Amino acid sequence: MSSTQTEGTGRLEAFSDGVFAIAITLLVLELKEPADGSGGLWHGLVHEWPQFAAYLVSFFIIGIMWMNHHSMFSNIVRADRKLLLLNLLLLLWTSLIPFPTALVSRHLSGNGADASTAEAVYSANLTLAAIAFSGLWFHAVRSGLLAVPMSREAQRSSIWRFSVGTLVYAATIGIAFVSPLAALVIQFLLAGYYLFEQVVTRDPRTA
Amino acid sequence: MSSTQTEGTGRLEAFSDGVFAIAITLLVLELKEPADGSGGLWHGLVHEWPQFAAYLVSFFIIGIMWMNHHSMFSNIVRADRKLLLLNLLLLLWTSLIPFPTALVSRHLSGNGADASTAEAVYSANLTLAAIAFSGLWFHAVRSGLLAVPMSREAQRSSIWRFSVGTLVYAATIGIAFVSPLAALVIQFLLAGYYLFEQVVTRDPRTA
Amino acid sequence: MSSTQTEGTGRLEAFSDGVFAIAITLLVLELKEPADGSGGLWHGLVHEWPQFAAYLVSFFIIGIMWMNHHSMFSNIVRADRKLLLLNLLLLLWTSLIPFPTALVSRHLSGNGADASTAEAVYSANLTLAAIAFSGLWFHAVRSGLLAVPMSREAQRSSIWRFSVGTLVYAATIGIAFVSPLAALVIQFLLAGYYLFEQVVTRDPRTA
Amino acid sequence: MSSTQTEGTGRLEAFSDGVFAIAITLLVLELKEPADGSGGLWHGLVHEWPQFAAYLVSFFIIGIMWMNHHSMFSNIVRADRKLLLLNLLLLLWTSLIPFPTALVSRHLSGNGADASTAEAVYSANLTLAAIAFSGLWFHAVRSGLLAVPMSREAQRSSIWRFSVGTLVYAATIGIAFVSPLAALVIQFLLAGYYLFEQVVTRDPRTA
Repeated sequence: MSSTQTEGTGRLEAFSDGVFAIAITLLVLELKEPADGSGGLWHGLVHEWPQFAAYLVSFFIIGIMWMNHHSMFSNIVRADRKLLLLNLLLLLWTSLIPFPTALVSRHLSGNGADASTAEAVYSANLTLAAIAFSGLWFHAVRSGLLAVPMSREAQRSSIWRFSVGTLVYAATIGIAFVSPLAALVIQFLLAGYYLFEQVVTRDPRTA
Repeated sequence: MSSTQTEGTGRLEAFSDGVFAIAITLLVLELKEPADGSGGLWHGLVHEWPQFAAYLVSFFIIGIMWMNHHSMFSNIVRADRKLLLLNLLLLLWTSLIPFPTALVSRHLSGNGADASTAEAVYSANLTLAAIAFSGLWFHAVRSGLLAVPMSREAQRSSIWRFSVGTLVYAATIGIAFVSPLAALVIQFLLAGYYLFEQVVTRDPRTA
Repeated sequence: MSSTQTEGTGRLEAFSDGVFAIAITLLVLELKEPADGSGGLWHGLVHEWPQFAAYLVSFFIIGIMWMNHHSMFSNIVRADRKLLLLNLLLLLWTSLIPFPTALVSRHLSGNGADASTAEAVYSANLTLAAIAFSGLWFHAVRSGLLAVPMSREAQRSSIWRFSVGTLVYAATIGIAFVSPLAALVIQFLLAGYYLFEQVVTRDPRTA
Repeated sequence: MSSTQTEGTGRLEAFSDGVFAIAITLLVLELKEPADGSGGLWHGLVHEWPQFAAYLVSFFIIGIMWMNHHSMFSNIVRADRKLLLLNLLLLLWTSLIPFPTALVSRHLSGNGADASTAEAVYSANLTLAAIAFSGLWFHAVRSGLLAVPMSREAQRSSIWRFSVGTLVYAATIGIAFVSPLAALVIQFLLAGYYLFEQVVTRDPRTA
């Protein structure tokens, strides 16, 4: 297959759906029963609140990434080799999320240097996912893989929104060293932003 | 994409099928070999009956939720942004189920305060899933996302059945403090009820 | 939905494919690194041969069950409520397989009472899966859910082949108490038998 | 079903997509938090670099195997019994990859005999996967399962490229005993080679 040849996106979407669905569901395996049972189970669960906070943030981030991947590919109708590779990069960072989530779960309440390290690693992971997401979209726009070509205006606007999100994620790497909890809260809010701000402004199948 | 725009439900169903299938299969990872081998493996397995009871109840609850999700979406033919979010909430509570299942597995035979806590947390999880399920359905009915609009009678009837189930799940939170085992048995029976009582009274594709 | 109403099998197959694929892939999580490193890693891996034997047998059993589920549903074209439930029972026993596989992995080389118990529990699991598989097929045949109705001859022949396989699985429960390893070998051979002996004698889509 | 009968490849692709997606996502579960926290979390993570290297190599190998499976099946349009079995073999070796990946993760930095053993087991696993991949392709070519028959020239060329890759994987088994790290680097580069060198030279659906 020559590198300029393209194909449909059916199996790419199926494979991506699988990875998103598995990554989001594996998060539950990082939830641990409180090790110290001296104060009773309920006390232990309350004490372990960081693992539930991290679970929730990661669940919504992966879920909303899936929703946006979904929206994006309702407009991307052709896949070339490079798109497959950029998508694989996005899946790499997505399927890695359970690992730094576990780091945050265990260290956030400590609030020392390890809490900052854990949250910064988590932030770096999310930043890399955001960069891969942007790269995927920019490549699709530039290489004419869309069903409906975007106007220059719409392109500039979508690049702007992606860049803002990516920069905020990158900023949380630094914020993690000031307040790990604040960084986590910002990431939760940013997921909410992506919930309502979509890159695709028009769905060619329904409009 | 404007928030009033809708699209098909194909990838939503595929992603949900994935999460349901993974959550139901991950339950097996919470089954542990008996730690105390002094009485032999068979004795240990019998002694660990609560983990098999919890596995069974969770398996049927997730399985029947999948069946009803399936029935529901045979009538829902359009998805808007809010439906995607409500569905994500349902998947959040569904994919969390293995965690309280593990709590029940380890604490049910203790029958003290921790057994009640574990079972109450499990009940709360199921109640939240039932609420999300109801919210998903009510939104689909009210927002005209159905292939076949329901009569007012059918709407009222479906709301009634959902509310009853959700209330029984909520009641098991309290029952867990009286008898954790009784709460688990009621949850098993309620899954059986949902097996035969369907929200969708007519499948537009086959009738 | 009335209980006699039927629908297509698309999502049932997708959900089942998911559970089969996850169960077969989760088996790898039960493979453990040798705990005793005194003789070096290679020595430890060789010493842990039972876990690789159990992995292999379970992988082929689940894989061939998937192949036969696949063949079966190339002829089953309608699903009623009871078929969904019987299929859920089959998935219950399928997704449970990693647990007794882990028991066999850890106890087979011991060759005492625990080896027999582990292998007998494994055999019981496979027997229950075979019974669920038979029940699924008999229901589909009797309830007219097939694309191509079978002749009485073909029905009798398919029932005979299913019953033989199920009886051999049931027999391995007893054999496990004589020789756990012999029972495991018989199960591997039986998987090979099911590989070539199919219940569906005609694929309506290709013939 | 007679052994010469064929069917479509839809469910085979769906099941394979599932196994590839799960295997690639399960890799994250083998990432462990540093056990020794004496130097702080960041120090511990840096010290555990082999697990990230092994994660990365395995992620790209499975991901690129999926891409090539995808390309291959865009040309394979019929499946016979033997193809299903060869595909099951490929999935066996693919879903096993997380196990030797974990061995490499824990032993690579040791650099003694165990590092070589771990990397050689990993290499053997990849070699077996490459052999299964070749077997799948050769069978499809020889048995006329392709949408577009290949010229003798193209057949010879594709056999040559597969054989080279398989031989290099086999060579890393030996190289692991000289330098485990060099073997891992070669495997990473080989994945890159397979990224650009495809067996399928023409996609019949798009050309």
